[in-house]
Amino acid sequence: MYEVLKRHRSFSGETIFCEHDSSATKTKMKFSAFLPREVEQIENAIIWLSGLTCTEENFITKAGAQTYLSDTSTMVICPDTSPRGLHLPGEDYSYDFGSGAGFYVNATEDPYATNYQMDDYIIKDLVSILRDGFKIKKLSIMGHSMGGHGALVLGLRNPDLFESISAFSPIVNPIACPWGQKALKGYLGENQEEWKKYDACELLNSGAKAKNKILIDQGSNDEFLKEQLLSENFKVAADNAGQVYSLNYREGFDHSYYFIASYIEDHIKFHLENF
Amino acid sequence: MYEVLKRHRSFSGETIFCEHDSSATKTKMKFSAFLPREVEQIENAIIWLSGLTCTEENFITKAGAQTYLSDTSTMVICPDTSPRGLHLPGEDYSYDFGSGAGFYVNATEDPYATNYQMDDYIIKDLVSILRDGFKIKKLSIMGHSMGGHGALVLGLRNPDLFESISAFSPIVNPIACPWGQKALKGYLGENQEEWKKYDACELLNSGAKAKNKILIDQGSNDEFLKEQLLSENFKVAADNAGQVYSLNYREGFDHSYYFIASYIEDHIKFHLENF
Repeated sequence: MYEVLKRHRSFSGETIFCEHDSSATKTKMKFSAFLPREVEQIENAIIWLSGLTCTEENFITKAGAQTYLSDTSTMVICPDTSPRGLHLPGEDYSYDFGSGAGFYVNATEDPYATNYQMDDYIIKDLVSILRDGFKIKKLSIMGHSMGGHGALVLGLRNPDLFESISAFSPIVNPIACPWGQKALKGYLGENQEEWKKYDACELLNSGAKAKNKILIDQGSNDEFLKEQLLSENFKVAADNAGQVYSLNYREGFDHSYYFIASYIEDHIKFHLENF
Repeated sequence: MYEVLKRHRSFSGETIFCEHDSSATKTKMKFSAFLPREVEQIENAIIWLSGLTCTEENFITKAGAQTYLSDTSTMVICPDTSPRGLHLPGEDYSYDFGSGAGFYVNATEDPYATNYQMDDYIIKDLVSILRDGFKIKKLSIMGHSMGGHGALVLGLRNPDLFESISAFSPIVNPIACPWGQKALKGYLGENQEEWKKYDACELLNSGAKAKNKILIDQGSNDEFLKEQLLSENFKVAADNAGQVYSLNYREGFDHSYYFIASYIEDHIKFHLENF
């Protein structure tokens, strides 16, 4: 089902790096995970989705999450952000499209449609591994930037699957920002109605609702806030939709992992309370 | 005195990356630091010395130390592991000598003698920055692997300067292991009496003593334990010298930052108690 490539004893459990065959992407895919104790004792999983240019390594090495999950029965699992090694035309030209930038959508445009099925990869393949491989009962989802977009969108599209959703510095309205427009056009084509299926604000506008409160933390000094992240648009959409949420602006914090590390304790506690 | 290249809001303080002119190395040198609050409110500093191949970045991004220093009046400062950019003959050929591998000695052999003055760099230049730039009152020192060696050796050579010394997976007896022999010969020449001045066990044998207990954590599953780290030799030397210490073997842990992250809380508490 999955192969453990590396394992490191970590707190009272293990940090592991794994590889498996994905039927969604038709490639090998990698993920990391922190297992706070023996697999048999783990009941819940938080899926972490990373941002642009990240791999399965960034969160698990930089966020300091292990210390707050230690001695719980909840694991965190961190998938890579795109298929790798395909050498598709245009795949490796830019940091915000293709490799490291799958945007958690099911692509319909050639040449990406065959492999860039990141929505299915997370919701079908990775969830199957959690259910069958790790015997997980309950799931939640969180992420950062492009991965915050992924957490919001996959969470709102699958409200019964996830107990709770949270995000750091998410792209909340990709149809309205340059990163999102480039990616959605590249993966989904010209029809903007298709884009709306992967836009958190548009999902809220069309009636999607999460099971519990959505938690968002956003640095006030984030260099991408005004052009790309557009956090205030989420506020408007969630207020109109009656979606309960907390959107916390954190004074002086930027877009980096130093911000994530500073507030990951709050996010982990939030998910633990909702399991 | 030093230039701040990057600053990230981090917990209730800042993680900063700095550069300055070093009179010891006659180069620019970089360091990172976590300041848990305003500079005026900080009283103590822990110097962290990194291991082979590391820069000023590894510890500050991977160890998760900020969470345990948050809301204290103690900063941590993490210097780079060697001068950079000199292009000396042989400097960049191997991971265990030259760039990224200064071993915290004052080199006497050409062509390294002019710049590889890492002992003076730490004890004179960096300590001056802490005293004059950050107005630090008390100091302690810790490190990992080659940096654990650095913490033990610089700590034992300067017992009045440091309140406490700790190390993860240190090279305790470099004159007796391949990494140490290569480095000490390369920096100090053929005379092994000179090597002993930078060997923790030999310093203990010749009467050096730390002000307080020395704390060492060592993974039992560390791939370098038997050939390079030789922790048991420290035990013998410290017992003979009457140096108080704790040497904790941690079952199943390896040489990685996942080990450091798992026990950094203990080390920070240890240093805080000794200030």
